[in-house]
Amino acid sequence: MKALVYYGAKDVRVSEVPDPKIEQPTDVLVRITTTNICGSDLHMYEGRTNMEEGRIFGHENLGEVIEVGNAVVNIKVGDMVCMPFNIGCGHCKNCESGLTAFCLTMNPGFAGAAYGFAGMGPYDGGQAEYLRVPYGDFNCLKLPEDAKEKENDYVLLSDIFPTGFHATQLAGVKPGDNVVIYGAGPVGLMAAISAGIKGANKIMVVDNHPDRLKLAEELGAIPIDFSKAPAVDQVLELTDGIGADRGCECVGYQCCDKHGHEHNNITMNELVQAVKFTGSIGVVGVFVAPDPKAEDPLAKKGHMDFDFGNFWLKGQSIATGQANVKSYNRQLCGLISSGKAKPSVIISHELSLDDAPDGYKHFDARDKGWTKVILKPGKQGTTKIQAEEREALTA
Amino acid sequence: MKALVYYGAKDVRVSEVPDPKIEQPTDVLVRITTTNICGSDLHMYEGRTNMEEGRIFGHENLGEVIEVGNAVVNIKVGDMVCMPFNIGCGHCKNCESGLTAFCLTMNPGFAGAAYGFAGMGPYDGGQAEYLRVPYGDFNCLKLPEDAKEKENDYVLLSDIFPTGFHATQLAGVKPGDNVVIYGAGPVGLMAAISAGIKGANKIMVVDNHPDRLKLAEELGAIPIDFSKAPAVDQVLELTDGIGADRGCECVGYQCCDKHGHEHNNITMNELVQAVKFTGSIGVVGVFVAPDPKAEDPLAKKGHMDFDFGNFWLKGQSIATGQANVKSYNRQLCGLISSGKAKPSVIISHELSLDDAPDGYKHFDARDKGWTKVILKPGKQGTTKIQAEEREALTA
Amino acid sequence: MKALVYYGAKDVRVSEVPDPKIEQPTDVLVRITTTNICGSDLHMYEGRTNMEEGRIFGHENLGEVIEVGNAVVNIKVGDMVCMPFNIGCGHCKNCESGLTAFCLTMNPGFAGAAYGFAGMGPYDGGQAEYLRVPYGDFNCLKLPEDAKEKENDYVLLSDIFPTGFHATQLAGVKPGDNVVIYGAGPVGLMAAISAGIKGANKIMVVDNHPDRLKLAEELGAIPIDFSKAPAVDQVLELTDGIGADRGCECVGYQCCDKHGHEHNNITMNELVQAVKFTGSIGVVGVFVAPDPKAEDPLAKKGHMDFDFGNFWLKGQSIATGQANVKSYNRQLCGLISSGKAKPSVIISHELSLDDAPDGYKHFDARDKGWTKVILKPGKQGTTKIQAEEREALTA
Amino acid sequence: MKALVYYGAKDVRVSEVPDPKIEQPTDVLVRITTTNICGSDLHMYEGRTNMEEGRIFGHENLGEVIEVGNAVVNIKVGDMVCMPFNIGCGHCKNCESGLTAFCLTMNPGFAGAAYGFAGMGPYDGGQAEYLRVPYGDFNCLKLPEDAKEKENDYVLLSDIFPTGFHATQLAGVKPGDNVVIYGAGPVGLMAAISAGIKGANKIMVVDNHPDRLKLAEELGAIPIDFSKAPAVDQVLELTDGIGADRGCECVGYQCCDKHGHEHNNITMNELVQAVKFTGSIGVVGVFVAPDPKAEDPLAKKGHMDFDFGNFWLKGQSIATGQANVKSYNRQLCGLISSGKAKPSVIISHELSLDDAPDGYKHFDARDKGWTKVILKPGKQGTTKIQAEEREALTA
Repeated sequence: MKALVYYGAKDVRVSEVPDPKIEQPTDVLVRITTTNICGSDLHMYEGRTNMEEGRIFGHENLGEVIEVGNAVVNIKVGDMVCMPFNIGCGHCKNCESGLTAFCLTMNPGFAGAAYGFAGMGPYDGGQAEYLRVPYGDFNCLKLPEDAKEKENDYVLLSDIFPTGFHATQLAGVKPGDNVVIYGAGPVGLMAAISAGIKGANKIMVVDNHPDRLKLAEELGAIPIDFSKAPAVDQVLELTDGIGADRGCECVGYQCCDKHGHEHNNITMNELVQAVKFTGSIGVVGVFVAPDPKAEDPLAKKGHMDFDFGNFWLKGQSIATGQANVKSYNRQLCGLISSGKAKPSVIISHELSLDDAPDGYKHFDARDKGWTKVILKPGKQGTTKIQAEEREALTA
Repeated sequence: MKALVYYGAKDVRVSEVPDPKIEQPTDVLVRITTTNICGSDLHMYEGRTNMEEGRIFGHENLGEVIEVGNAVVNIKVGDMVCMPFNIGCGHCKNCESGLTAFCLTMNPGFAGAAYGFAGMGPYDGGQAEYLRVPYGDFNCLKLPEDAKEKENDYVLLSDIFPTGFHATQLAGVKPGDNVVIYGAGPVGLMAAISAGIKGANKIMVVDNHPDRLKLAEELGAIPIDFSKAPAVDQVLELTDGIGADRGCECVGYQCCDKHGHEHNNITMNELVQAVKFTGSIGVVGVFVAPDPKAEDPLAKKGHMDFDFGNFWLKGQSIATGQANVKSYNRQLCGLISSGKAKPSVIISHELSLDDAPDGYKHFDARDKGWTKVILKPGKQGTTKIQAEEREALTA
Repeated sequence: MKALVYYGAKDVRVSEVPDPKIEQPTDVLVRITTTNICGSDLHMYEGRTNMEEGRIFGHENLGEVIEVGNAVVNIKVGDMVCMPFNIGCGHCKNCESGLTAFCLTMNPGFAGAAYGFAGMGPYDGGQAEYLRVPYGDFNCLKLPEDAKEKENDYVLLSDIFPTGFHATQLAGVKPGDNVVIYGAGPVGLMAAISAGIKGANKIMVVDNHPDRLKLAEELGAIPIDFSKAPAVDQVLELTDGIGADRGCECVGYQCCDKHGHEHNNITMNELVQAVKFTGSIGVVGVFVAPDPKAEDPLAKKGHMDFDFGNFWLKGQSIATGQANVKSYNRQLCGLISSGKAKPSVIISHELSLDDAPDGYKHFDARDKGWTKVILKPGKQGTTKIQAEEREALTA
Repeated sequence: MKALVYYGAKDVRVSEVPDPKIEQPTDVLVRITTTNICGSDLHMYEGRTNMEEGRIFGHENLGEVIEVGNAVVNIKVGDMVCMPFNIGCGHCKNCESGLTAFCLTMNPGFAGAAYGFAGMGPYDGGQAEYLRVPYGDFNCLKLPEDAKEKENDYVLLSDIFPTGFHATQLAGVKPGDNVVIYGAGPVGLMAAISAGIKGANKIMVVDNHPDRLKLAEELGAIPIDFSKAPAVDQVLELTDGIGADRGCECVGYQCCDKHGHEHNNITMNELVQAVKFTGSIGVVGVFVAPDPKAEDPLAKKGHMDFDFGNFWLKGQSIATGQANVKSYNRQLCGLISSGKAKPSVIISHELSLDDAPDGYKHFDARDKGWTKVILKPGKQGTTKIQAEEREALTA
């Protein structure tokens, strides 16, 4: 089959690789119809991780079941399914508690496994024609009858919609809360949608890319451009000097100041200031340990110059980590099906698998308008989903 | 009346000061019968804060009501009462949510007020013969009939018992959890008792003072002496290499390594290592912002070299802040009354008010056996509560 | 002053009564500008309670502060304020835990007090020109600057908006849940709005009044007319045979079958059937104990023929009781202020105080279109807020 | 193999039946070493259910793994394992949320499956030499190294210890709460132990069997003999007239008054009275729907004359249902292993499998001292665990 293979820093190519097959009675084989490029793919793409050459990328996958192992009972051939990016066994101490992002079985010596991910186990990714899904009954979400019609929405259930929702869950967003979200990338935008679903009051999204801030505004959020004035000042002004009730970090360790310089503590220290006394902060942006290619000596070892004193004095809390996708994907699926959520509004480009390397290049450069790129392994050519269309969708 | 007055770094004296009086219709006047010296008094005593000279110390207070304002309805003259160290108004947004440690009324421009505390409002402390209690109906816990008999237990409801309990609450301790507590001082020991009340499994207490570790062991905890082997290694060995389910920080910014050198990040970074993936950490040890007298440049500005990378990777959470004493003091009071909790086992010395300066000197020096010092303004002389007696109490 | 006084079953009149005055230093006096007739006023109006003759009705009150006692610090003369229908002291065990509907101080021998309510203490109601508010700092919600412009929205913060929200809170409604609400009266409609705020998926509202069901539909809910087909069947069909995730009871003991016969167990037993295994039910409709004027012998003693067997087998839960308004009114106030909630869409009639008796008559008869009646003590005449206007508001 | 087979009302015999075998790749085969008789076995034994003749009883099972299917990865031959009485698939909507007592896969058309249970699927019970365990990785709890030494403790993890704990969880027991438990049978006693683990204050256990009440007292609870004075009066007296904070129902539909007459509403209506305003009640006693052999017409259809009026007025809540054993068994296992819980103190008799019919007869008759009966399929003869020994164990 064809697959997008990693050959080194900024070098990914579509290559012929062996087809996956059923290896365990609990496996399921899926023909991939949509698979996305994720911001966390870029960490590997840029060569900033220890990703092995020759591996297949892709952890945001959706497709049709073409074969099931003989111990699989609820998933059937022909089902349209979406897979959480985390792979869980379903029976370890963490999986049975819903902490499926921290499975103790699938990646021995660590807690958590994923498709096509550095350090997350040997599993191939789904930026390919076919994907083997371990523990298919547990790891496939069977989609409703409108699966094909809303495929671009449902595929976001694999990662970024639940991850954005997780940010609001970690932050403890409640109806009526004012929420500040750092980052208007795909995950930050999903956090904004999620805060809206939860009945948040003011939803303030901080970024410095005008196209992304405009999209945030279309989604009902208040855009805060930190290149124009300090973000903290803007948040305090919008909240009568009190600060936001809840904060979401959706950027991660590569956060930059307005001059484009990377300092891993910018977003976190600003959140401590922008969030009120007794407020809480959810962090889904990726922070790594260690990061040998960082310039800052603290950052190199994965540490941070953190404003712990004010954090403590204000009685705040921080919760972190990858999303336990299975905790949210069924409920969010229902909202998509009933038309109450339409996360696909942020998708900017649909590409064929052959055009994936080009997609990586533009998305990595954060080229204007390249908000979210999805791949269609069974199709040819590239579709640019225009801003105008997006506006129509969000109207 | 006589009161313990602050005159500058390491200079406290018993002086004559004007009697307090009813100032508001909601006030209550209390004749203090027991009042404790707290570890956080030492920060001020050492001159490390901006405490004003001439002020009265003491935020752990218990006594008898001698006068009530004409808007006070539930508290009566003659009631034995114990006051939370935080002063709340009872009607601001935070107080009405139970966040009484962050009252927005009593200390304008900040969130939170306390008796005799730097930066926590103009309120006199209770290391004195009498104390004015604002909003007496809200800030007095009326004690049961055995108030005098168990006065040394009930007085701990003012701060350290609820604060230790708060550590376990912030950490989310549940029945069967393995818990690691950094610090075997009074608050750490109260956290150990609290973890026991909550049905924790292994309760591991980290310190390097043998007398305090012995007391922890008497309370049913596993003592971990970090001067003998790295604490993290010991915790991992006791938990099959997984780490504790929950961690409690009960030391604060003045934590030291085994050579006695202060590094404000020791306890937090060790907790990240000693606590499991998905585990949670409660921080009640005081961290300040800024701390001009610290040596380390990060510490000076109240910052910390924090291992955020591993914290995030492990999907952990941290919750912080001063205890909302009123959230716990009624329930803990019931446990004392029924004999199910006996926190007074940690009290080492009972002093008269006149002997208070001497008590400060020994407690500040962490002299052996000076675990917890309480003052009896109405009595004369000093009683050393012996280790032997303690053992009898905990048997 | 003028006030609406109860003289016996179905006999209320506007009479001259003495002006209220400051009685305690913690009191506040309010000039009422809007005050509503509530469904629970009708229980008293119909003579089905032990309401004393001569008392003033009205527990949904909003107005301007004209005088404050000398212990009041946060509320000022001139503030526009809205009062929760429950009166709390702010310092008893229940109030300090946020259970302000069950205050132990204000109505000795019971738990809970209210303005102008049978069995809820001696407090006068606000269907009058002026109202005395005990513990003004605690019981007044100070409104934002747009208070007068959105007065018809804010006045609903006194009871039915928080009460409808409480139904969804007791039921544990989470984003993506399918919710069934029994009753499309004012509280049921507020529950529908609240479920929407919380990101519910399908919101199904059960009633048999076409005008109310139409209003539910305008609010985004699915109307279920039980006069056309059994409600349980309709809910099961809409939920793939599984049942709703959560149920809300917003009718109470006077619930009727499609023939108009009262049976106090109809809504509860249908909810057990209409809600899924492991689902949960919130009950804010009033159930009384005892109800001597009921016909059914069980109902007379306040009992119910309840389908406990299926309730247990399905592992369901029920939570009940009057809303702790103060737990919700600040957050809901923010949503009104930002335009994210507009509960006034259900108001059908604005009346002068003089026309109040006429309003009671129509509202009690459930005359078509009389959804929610509010009174304006300072104005003359009656305004019918037309269906057309309502539609414009909900567009 | 030999197994305890049901032949009709009060007729169970040990018979030869075919050995179970691996049927699915996910199955595990266990040689049973301990298996208990449960109070809910008695409902079937008495012929009061639709249990099919010829089926094997036994849902409280522990033993050694002798064979595993080829898709089983975490459970190994030789492991000592304890099985929750509920059988879950591990991947349906309920199992993945931890609601394993309501599995949607294992018993189609219902929610929930169990071994050897009427209406809970076709699965054989474990009162036999061997047991087939579906989804072995999910349904086996691997025991620690002291498994054989503490086998009588660990076997209680299959049902009654988690079920008693579930009662306290459903009731929301918190540290310092006063708790009333109806029923001093095995589950009620486990609820008492669980309330103690959770730091409850007064634990009041209501029954009229002196031997069981004595055992409750040995466990640290306050015995309340309802044959001597109304239980509600005793609870109110012990709680200053306020009522218990939380209530647990551990009896079920066959509850009796002091004359031994069965009325299915006694415990529930007393709990409404014995529990405070705003209190909550957990119900794990079995209530059935319908119960054709009941005498009372309401009970026949599974209904109850329930005091809903007072329940609502007091703002109480009720949560119900079978325990999701997997939510608790790991944590409780840890407490047994560390010696902090010793539930086996309630076991009164150890029988060989051959003596099981005799054990049923005595246990069903509630003969004095027959508190809890366990079977040892691999052993011969009967051991009476004496009251004196029990006392030694609880000392």
